[in-house]
Amino acid sequence: MKTLLLGMKDVEAALSMEGVMEAVEEGYLAYHRGKVRQPDIVSIEIPENNGETDIKSCYNEINERISVKVASGFYNNGKVNNLPTMIGTILLYDGLDGSLLCVMDGSLITGIRTGAAGAISSKLLARKDAATAAVFGAGGQARMQVYGLCHVMKLQEVRVFSEDQQALANYQQDIEKNTGVSVVVCHSIAETMEKADIVITTTPAKKHYIPQSLVKPGMHIVAVGADMAGKNELDPAIFKGAKIVHDSTPQCVSRGETRNAIMAGVIKESDIHGEIGQLLAGEKPLREHDDEITIFDTTGMGIQDNVTAVMVYERALQKGLGNYFEFI
Amino acid sequence: MKTLLLGMKDVEAALSMEGVMEAVEEGYLAYHRGKVRQPDIVSIEIPENNGETDIKSCYNEINERISVKVASGFYNNGKVNNLPTMIGTILLYDGLDGSLLCVMDGSLITGIRTGAAGAISSKLLARKDAATAAVFGAGGQARMQVYGLCHVMKLQEVRVFSEDQQALANYQQDIEKNTGVSVVVCHSIAETMEKADIVITTTPAKKHYIPQSLVKPGMHIVAVGADMAGKNELDPAIFKGAKIVHDSTPQCVSRGETRNAIMAGVIKESDIHGEIGQLLAGEKPLREHDDEITIFDTTGMGIQDNVTAVMVYERALQKGLGNYFEFI
Repeated sequence: MKTLLLGMKDVEAALSMEGVMEAVEEGYLAYHRGKVRQPDIVSIEIPENNGETDIKSCYNEINERISVKVASGFYNNGKVNNLPTMIGTILLYDGLDGSLLCVMDGSLITGIRTGAAGAISSKLLARKDAATAAVFGAGGQARMQVYGLCHVMKLQEVRVFSEDQQALANYQQDIEKNTGVSVVVCHSIAETMEKADIVITTTPAKKHYIPQSLVKPGMHIVAVGADMAGKNELDPAIFKGAKIVHDSTPQCVSRGETRNAIMAGVIKESDIHGEIGQLLAGEKPLREHDDEITIFDTTGMGIQDNVTAVMVYERALQKGLGNYFEFI
Repeated sequence: MKTLLLGMKDVEAALSMEGVMEAVEEGYLAYHRGKVRQPDIVSIEIPENNGETDIKSCYNEINERISVKVASGFYNNGKVNNLPTMIGTILLYDGLDGSLLCVMDGSLITGIRTGAAGAISSKLLARKDAATAAVFGAGGQARMQVYGLCHVMKLQEVRVFSEDQQALANYQQDIEKNTGVSVVVCHSIAETMEKADIVITTTPAKKHYIPQSLVKPGMHIVAVGADMAGKNELDPAIFKGAKIVHDSTPQCVSRGETRNAIMAGVIKESDIHGEIGQLLAGEKPLREHDDEITIFDTTGMGIQDNVTAVMVYERALQKGLGNYFEFI
């Protein structure tokens, strides 16, 4: 039984934002149609080493593949060693016989499939004339969200805010070089939100920093950073009256930004508009008028990893990437 | 970041029952002492392909390693292809920085660490003069249990029962060749139980086949097969008055043989004697008299995989086994 091994460079060579967006849309639809068996996320916290490990797994009936992603965040990395903070591995199994098809680095996939998710939500929910994005955080995910956006709209300006000045300079350089979109480095939350059509939150904040007063009619908010209980970027009041869309409602209610709004008593679960798969399937309306405030809350699903990893695996086979090893 | 790859043959070369028994005892003690963070088991059922995949993960503070085992059972395998029914993979991460130390085949480890668990229980709970084992099932686990037993007692006879006649012949040959213990192939449950000191159940039965009438005072029962809701090998009445020991009480109550006895109303959770880690730590009595009936119920824990995989990894490093691959 030969297993394909794909390192980060192989995965990078097989990935494209366009392909991932297509795959993630298919994944959301498969999930919506009940074709995905996706167990709860498993988390192991190792606070004494400033680390955590999450396991997201699923079986997708459409491609007949089982995927298991083990993704770690060790936040002392880079400072005390040369390792990346986010390290991931994805195992891909044949759902017909359990054979191990591929072990691939999963460090890039989480970033790109999450960027794709945000962009898909903006395609469905942002105003048609949206052209300015306010981005909070200047790390990998703040980049991926913009790379995704560039595939679904004519983005003209990125306004970015971060407390890390060095990260901001690098961010500006990277985005301008890779997308041609001009980046305005802002010095306050308010300045960042000025003229924004799309607001993207990617920080690990535990206390909300975006006040309701800065959220204007017509904005679309992509809430990415708050992916577990205890994280919070948006004033819960922002949810009042907004059109709220989830990747997975059970997950967002239990560990997403929505959790904070429900716990604050601002909304009830019945105020949720729907899951993004319902919007893609045409079963729920998209944005209905230009003054609506829309929110896409995403905590990330195993099905996104599944479809992205399968796409990478198939492209790697076509391109002859990677090495083989016989585990059995 | 170099990752060690160990195929089944490498793992086999690094494994020994003695080493695994020592490791599993350490693992049970670590678990008992609160040094193990072990999330719930994740299960994905694929009944349309007669398959299932389980994920057992844990962090062990003692060795500072995170382990994730993905273990599948695809029960058409072997009949329609040349693949084993049980296929497993273990990922081993450094708990200090999240780096991927090793990807190893996990197909052998589940078997041997489960055999070790049964043997440890017999060392603690079987009568000192125990010499005859009744084994139900003639597959891999029925072998491992006997290999384990041979390390803790002078086993003189194995009495085996299975509905698969061909499997029985192979079983007899293997056990006699590998252990020198004589195997009596039996033709009924009653014949198998005659003179047994230790009873080992390893089948996937969903309806109990061992009646209370055949269980005699002084027997030690190792309940291995029933590891998820719906499986059942022992008449629940056998639990009445027995000294019941678990690997993990929460797991055995929710998915082990004990679940059946509790659901049948034969015992309450307060009738459980304790966890095996408590016995190893000297905090709970072992067998107290020769007429006692003792039951060890095991559904398998991530910590067993963790300590076994770490032992394999370290021995493989010492022996220079395996290959390396750079995922990052």
